[in-house]
Amino acid sequence: MNILISCDENYLRPLRVMLVSLFENTKNKYNIYLIHKNISDKKIEKLEDFVENISDNKSKLISIKVDALFMGAKTTFYYTEEMYYRLLAYKYLPENLGKILYLDPDILVLNSFEKLYNIDFKDNLFAAATHSAPAVQGANVTRLSLSSGYDDISNYFNSGILMINLNLARESENYEREVKKYIEESKSFGLLMPDQDLLNVVFRNNIISISELEYNYDARKFLFYKLKNKSWDLSYVMDNTKFLHFCGKRKPWFDEEYIGIFASLYKYFLKKADRIYKNIEDM
Amino acid sequence: MNILISCDENYLRPLRVMLVSLFENTKNKYNIYLIHKNISDKKIEKLEDFVENISDNKSKLISIKVDALFMGAKTTFYYTEEMYYRLLAYKYLPENLGKILYLDPDILVLNSFEKLYNIDFKDNLFAAATHSAPAVQGANVTRLSLSSGYDDISNYFNSGILMINLNLARESENYEREVKKYIEESKSFGLLMPDQDLLNVVFRNNIISISELEYNYDARKFLFYKLKNKSWDLSYVMDNTKFLHFCGKRKPWFDEEYIGIFASLYKYFLKKADRIYKNIEDM
Repeated sequence: MNILISCDENYLRPLRVMLVSLFENTKNKYNIYLIHKNISDKKIEKLEDFVENISDNKSKLISIKVDALFMGAKTTFYYTEEMYYRLLAYKYLPENLGKILYLDPDILVLNSFEKLYNIDFKDNLFAAATHSAPAVQGANVTRLSLSSGYDDISNYFNSGILMINLNLARESENYEREVKKYIEESKSFGLLMPDQDLLNVVFRNNIISISELEYNYDARKFLFYKLKNKSWDLSYVMDNTKFLHFCGKRKPWFDEEYIGIFASLYKYFLKKADRIYKNIEDM
Repeated sequence: MNILISCDENYLRPLRVMLVSLFENTKNKYNIYLIHKNISDKKIEKLEDFVENISDNKSKLISIKVDALFMGAKTTFYYTEEMYYRLLAYKYLPENLGKILYLDPDILVLNSFEKLYNIDFKDNLFAAATHSAPAVQGANVTRLSLSSGYDDISNYFNSGILMINLNLARESENYEREVKKYIEESKSFGLLMPDQDLLNVVFRNNIISISELEYNYDARKFLFYKLKNKSWDLSYVMDNTKFLHFCGKRKPWFDEEYIGIFASLYKYFLKKADRIYKNIEDM
């Protein structure tokens, strides 16, 4: 399976946590493509060792440094750089890759996700989940409809877990042009747009909606989900949720006051990842 | 290392969770002695397979059925049977075992515990931790002082994690007599005494006090501990706590409303243990 990740040096620690949970709780082999701008060679080497270690040498990390590629675009794409990496990944990934699963670093992988990986894209470019808290969802849809002028925006997808149809992206004539056009227009409005907006405006009709509880469970919203449906309890999460997403500003890896219901689980994997990494550093 | 466990069929599920966490988070080999009264041969066999599976065949379960041994004593020792197994374990364990660590089934093992296992007993029979919530501690000390008539009871030890000096127990002339005397006296008072009282009255001067936070962390009391000392946060637990004890009546393995801060961690191991067990059943 192909996994796409992207971060800077500040996110390497949660990235390692995500990777430990990936190998601990699923049994596949992975080619993990890390697209980045300025992570040092030394840190990349250690991360390669780390992936070999936690996968028993069965999976590997492939580093793709995009400095040269995006240098010219840097100022233009400042606010959407990360999203740009995700949406235009097909341009710098090996041409034989037909699809890839993008994963944010602030995630715990709890269960196997073959079904998502083998989803039938039909004519769609992506598969993603919306976050269903009505206020947030409604506000984003309204904001995007007003700012974009489109009246067919009905969902606001979270881009933290994104199944990408690379083949179709490569074949789509307008794909890259649409992305760039959107960025230029946003820039001309002088708006600081959240990265996700790009996905939700440009590709609003090209996304398959997948289950939020299974594939993009917002770790802050346990009680919200449980109020909606009593059976969506902790056992449900452990049995069904593939990706537990630690969305939002407060992050369990540096905030000791983060005491949500999934904090202990996160800290457990954090400790595990830190220890493995320390052993590699000591070698 | 020698581990002592004791339970009935109702506690086999949490017992498996404890065992999974033991092998997941420590690296030693164990001889696990299960003292029980009436667990079926079939279930014992499966548990043996389970231990072989999770330990990569490096550790083993040794079942000790005590039906015959205690049949006569059953009515007398009704209320203290479990504690009796613990305190008189040396009578039915192999004679060459010098020491053993007793562990309750309602525990997650988070870190290695060599230091406790290799504790210098000096002239003591046990090592155990008190639970420090002042109200509980005070009430138990007062209750025991009054009922026993001893004025030198100053601690109330939790018997859920108990390091036992088997050699000294075997050598102590009065040991078994004292245990039986206490039980007879309690019975004559017509009191329903908690199991732990026996340890705290009879052996009040033979217990080494060990760190509660490291060796018997009460999972219900995260906020209590943290109020006492700000640095006793989740990271502290993950780095330092060896045994996370799910004390009290509400248990995370059957109570979906149990949503304490360690609920997600417990459920994670519960799912893991259930899956491994199911695979063994399906074989």
